[in-house]
Amino acid sequence: MSEALRISRVDITPVAFKDPALLNAVGVHEPYALRAVIEVTTDQGIAGLGETYADEGHLRRLRSAADALTGMDVHALGAMRRRIAELTGDDRGGDGHGLTGMITTSSTVDRVFSPFEVACLDIQGRAAGRPVSDLLGGAVRDEVPFSAYLFYKWAAHPGHEPDEWGPALDPYGIVAQARRMVERFGFGAIKLKGGVMPPEQEVEAVLELRRAFPGIPLRLDPNAAWTVETSLKVARRLEGVLEYLEDPTPGQEGMARVAREAPMPLATNMCVVAFDELPSAVRDDAVGVVLSDHHYWGGLHRSKLLAGICATFGMGLSMHSNSHLGISLAAMTHLAAATENLTYACDTHWPWKDPAEDVIVPGVLGFRAGAVAVPRSPGLGVELDRDALARLHEQYLRCGLRNRDDTGYMRRLDPSYEKKSPRW
Amino acid sequence: MSEALRISRVDITPVAFKDPALLNAVGVHEPYALRAVIEVTTDQGIAGLGETYADEGHLRRLRSAADALTGMDVHALGAMRRRIAELTGDDRGGDGHGLTGMITTSSTVDRVFSPFEVACLDIQGRAAGRPVSDLLGGAVRDEVPFSAYLFYKWAAHPGHEPDEWGPALDPYGIVAQARRMVERFGFGAIKLKGGVMPPEQEVEAVLELRRAFPGIPLRLDPNAAWTVETSLKVARRLEGVLEYLEDPTPGQEGMARVAREAPMPLATNMCVVAFDELPSAVRDDAVGVVLSDHHYWGGLHRSKLLAGICATFGMGLSMHSNSHLGISLAAMTHLAAATENLTYACDTHWPWKDPAEDVIVPGVLGFRAGAVAVPRSPGLGVELDRDALARLHEQYLRCGLRNRDDTGYMRRLDPSYEKKSPRW
Repeated sequence: MSEALRISRVDITPVAFKDPALLNAVGVHEPYALRAVIEVTTDQGIAGLGETYADEGHLRRLRSAADALTGMDVHALGAMRRRIAELTGDDRGGDGHGLTGMITTSSTVDRVFSPFEVACLDIQGRAAGRPVSDLLGGAVRDEVPFSAYLFYKWAAHPGHEPDEWGPALDPYGIVAQARRMVERFGFGAIKLKGGVMPPEQEVEAVLELRRAFPGIPLRLDPNAAWTVETSLKVARRLEGVLEYLEDPTPGQEGMARVAREAPMPLATNMCVVAFDELPSAVRDDAVGVVLSDHHYWGGLHRSKLLAGICATFGMGLSMHSNSHLGISLAAMTHLAAATENLTYACDTHWPWKDPAEDVIVPGVLGFRAGAVAVPRSPGLGVELDRDALARLHEQYLRCGLRNRDDTGYMRRLDPSYEKKSPRW
Repeated sequence: MSEALRISRVDITPVAFKDPALLNAVGVHEPYALRAVIEVTTDQGIAGLGETYADEGHLRRLRSAADALTGMDVHALGAMRRRIAELTGDDRGGDGHGLTGMITTSSTVDRVFSPFEVACLDIQGRAAGRPVSDLLGGAVRDEVPFSAYLFYKWAAHPGHEPDEWGPALDPYGIVAQARRMVERFGFGAIKLKGGVMPPEQEVEAVLELRRAFPGIPLRLDPNAAWTVETSLKVARRLEGVLEYLEDPTPGQEGMARVAREAPMPLATNMCVVAFDELPSAVRDDAVGVVLSDHHYWGGLHRSKLLAGICATFGMGLSMHSNSHLGISLAAMTHLAAATENLTYACDTHWPWKDPAEDVIVPGVLGFRAGAVAVPRSPGLGVELDRDALARLHEQYLRCGLRNRDDTGYMRRLDPSYEKKSPRW
């Protein structure tokens, strides 16, 4: 008989790390990004890591889940998810979970289950002496390409020192940011976070990027800031320029209307963020590309299920990112490596993170030519740096932020700011 | 770094085991059923088992695949499937593969890949000290319920000794068979293979079963022997009696027409047998229940993908069977145990097999109350019995059968027999 690997202890540590003043369709990133680090330990002393959002409601649900999962075998992933479902229901309502109000329909069960699943896969891999990608069907690529993720931004948070990136508030600032990021990381694809400036200016920025980087795939993501009409105007202006246009307009119905006439595929991480949103999206041809994200699609196995659904129903697959640390980067890399039809470079906020701030022992995850080599050591391949974890937890306690609120922060700085979708 | 577990050797052994004269919509089972036993061995000496069809064309493709996979790590399942796809293409055409012409559109790649995937999961489990169900997300049930699989049958193959089951050529023979099978195995669900007698007689048989087994779920599977009109007539006669009606009529279009008016869900293992047949089935609501079968859906991971698709798109999930030995029963049991939404009792031909004939060491897989307990030892939990394998291989060589051909056998016995779908 196989010996059980039972969960004997779960540690959940909220951390904060510095985040530049990155602008988006609902406001601006606060001075610190919040994450929760999950450490699951088994009765044999093998530990595994997960990383997720750290908003208060989410932390509360993570803690209940941790209690409910204690004593379970780390291989019993189906039973764990069922137990979390019994615990949380799947109301999706109520308090935030780190997705800043742009993603409101993701599954509570899948969001809560995800970091435990990742940590259990880390343990399974360590116990078996296999990298996590091997538990997901094996890596079909040795390295995972990511994209340069450009943001309109301020030079600094008001009252703070300027960051090293400088301001980017017009097309030239965006191109300068792109040059710097591509030079430093070697990215072979570029995504611009839009929905910040009037659409004509964002179109100009993309056209400038095309001139500056003639061969590189480009994407634009205004986070549903536009009406259907504006979306179509932009789509026509950028024909032949974008590999995909991401969430131009809110809702599947609006997306389907844009998709019928837009010359490029539409991608989404807003109108299809849970399994129960797939049938209508497929029926109405609302999107051509789904951005997966294991943090809200229920972990790595369920992200592979999403990938299989995209392959079966003729949709493309890319990968979404929020501000994250090294545990998430490792999980994203293993998942992407083991997902054959993930043919777009993945999003990552990695360049925006101070390299001195992380919770893992540095040195494993590096970018070369815009890609991260898939770790081949057992589990996720990253180790917790306990001193660094303590420092970032201290920073969490000190910074006072407890929920991500890009809109609230913007409104404190500019009381006239209104959240509107669509805005243009 | 993780040490590779490379495939150093693959043995493919065709075997034959006695099969009663079971009747179906295209003819009658021949006196022997053919299977191929796949044994994959790694350079560390760990071996794993798979089982599949043994028709000549399939054996030829299995042997090419075995050569192509030698040297690969047993965790590189995605890369293996890709290599088989490069090798075989996915023509689906040409020579038989053991499915007797009733399933003609399954994927060649998935059919060939399947037994290797199962054998590699067996090795992964043995190496990690975990049962295969643990590699699939963990068992959500300790035992897997199967259904009593009733057949119209002759008392004996012409020129052979009668088998112990006796004839079943009318409703009373069917009920007698059911009593015997339920008594012996404890099944809590009953399936009748139809498409053999005129529909009115099969309706009578089902109604007699309902009278004899008042509380037990019943299914009827005529293998597309009926027109849409006949299907609807039968469906109305059996309202409230069947949990599902399986493949009453050929093709998704016909199934969709029946589905719109039938009072019970329609199930299929004929008009949806590959991933590329799912989109149209979903779009047209052609079926309510898909019968999975890891032998043609590409192994256990891809069968879980099918399960996830059924859960996502609101279809039920059951499990199909062909005549099989213990390796397949073990694989089916692990898969079903780890598939939460597999809520119907699985099909199995197990009762029709002579208990003295198998290729595994007996004692692991037993039926209690119609269910098989999920093995908890590492891998599939079954061991190859080399003497038994040699005996059944001898029987394969001696029996002269090389391709399953229920229709050809029937026509040799009755030259007037015609294969027709629909027949009524």
